[in-house]
Amino acid sequence: MRIVRFAKGDELAFGVVDGEDHVTEIDGHPFQPSFELSGTRLPLADVRPVAPILPTKILAIGRNYAEHAAELGNEVPDEPLVFIKPSTSVVGPGEPVVYPAASAEVHHEAELAVVIGRVCRQVPRERVPEVVFGYTCGNDVTARDLQRREPQWARPKGFDTFCPLGPWIETEVDASDLAITCTVDDELRQSSRTSLMINDVAALVSYITEAMTLLPGDVILTGTPAGVGPLLPGQRVSVTIEGIGTLTNPVVAAD
Amino acid sequence: MRIVRFAKGDELAFGVVDGEDHVTEIDGHPFQPSFELSGTRLPLADVRPVAPILPTKILAIGRNYAEHAAELGNEVPDEPLVFIKPSTSVVGPGEPVVYPAASAEVHHEAELAVVIGRVCRQVPRERVPEVVFGYTCGNDVTARDLQRREPQWARPKGFDTFCPLGPWIETEVDASDLAITCTVDDELRQSSRTSLMINDVAALVSYITEAMTLLPGDVILTGTPAGVGPLLPGQRVSVTIEGIGTLTNPVVAAD
Repeated sequence: MRIVRFAKGDELAFGVVDGEDHVTEIDGHPFQPSFELSGTRLPLADVRPVAPILPTKILAIGRNYAEHAAELGNEVPDEPLVFIKPSTSVVGPGEPVVYPAASAEVHHEAELAVVIGRVCRQVPRERVPEVVFGYTCGNDVTARDLQRREPQWARPKGFDTFCPLGPWIETEVDASDLAITCTVDDELRQSSRTSLMINDVAALVSYITEAMTLLPGDVILTGTPAGVGPLLPGQRVSVTIEGIGTLTNPVVAAD
Repeated sequence: MRIVRFAKGDELAFGVVDGEDHVTEIDGHPFQPSFELSGTRLPLADVRPVAPILPTKILAIGRNYAEHAAELGNEVPDEPLVFIKPSTSVVGPGEPVVYPAASAEVHHEAELAVVIGRVCRQVPRERVPEVVFGYTCGNDVTARDLQRREPQWARPKGFDTFCPLGPWIETEVDASDLAITCTVDDELRQSSRTSLMINDVAALVSYITEAMTLLPGDVILTGTPAGVGPLLPGQRVSVTIEGIGTLTNPVVAAD
């Protein structure tokens, strides 16, 4: 099932995408154990999708693909390298990534995003599927020049608009071996498979929840494969994950 | 004015503390430009205060007092060192700090906490007072052993219960030169003044909002002075800031 969140007049609504081109509105919240389709069915082209979820927190993982760690001259860490992106960095499909004046080197990082469906802590590996609501595409946009200078990544990776998520949450895909790509305009920049993650989704959720409670809607960005590179104002960046969809964002200069 | 948030049956309410020992309930939310006192006045001893705010994000600052940077063998950074603590780490006055099984060295860090009152971005220094709602006491509890091993601090500083805040928000104090102390049981561990911050509140808010939007209720922990040290289960840790109050939390072992 594909859960989309969209603007409807002044309000936001959740819906289920059917047949790739229509959406049927949900009565209630998709995280509830049972929800009903309200019957309102619209062409997907007639609604404006927004980020499929607004997380209370976004945990992100560094150096979780060996070739990516190597391309930036880093070792693979012994344990997952966890950092936090602020919720104010989230934008949805089609919304601009704003190139900040403070950076001269903004990079794309295509990532599989895990959406948590339940309050959970200390989740053992084998129970992780029970707390995962679904998956979407994420882009862990990074001011690489600032990241090189600043020991903590909250700011280099935390600018407003630096966390595109979308286009929807796919709740039924097996995420263990999906093709993941990033294209900038028509150029293929990143192309890998989620099976190459060093720590898989079960390992990450288990590790993170040893320390902190996850809440419904929280997001885990699972790390980016090799091929990260610069974005420039005027370009369009797309993250595509097999079985999920494509998240596309234009890049614009700051005012 | 001292804004307290407290449990009232199954609900949470905001109130104004008067005369140190009574609280009058607020009708509405204290962040609204005008709110009314509902008239219900209770002895402070009869209510259970909780964290005075639940932030969407907590920005925290490392190495913002020179003597503290030196005691851990660190240089003072050229620019504020910003990291994020998750909202799930917040607890209120009197609530336990849980010593996690993953760490053998949990430290207290007494800090002045700034509470933001308005949506704001790119705030120039001179306009920072307009976006600050008030101040409270914070304790940036840290698993020091994990912090030494992990390059990013999200996890070492992000365990559930690792961000005590309270006991209330003081909206009228001038925070530029206040005595700040930390005691563990009856032992004075930290004693300094907020005037010794390397980057003051105006500088921090201005720097952070260059990158990211702050929302009402967001909290900035402004760094800890020298004297950090270990906490043990069974101890009580208190942060006192002149003109604000005292935040006390018991330390307990994990289940």
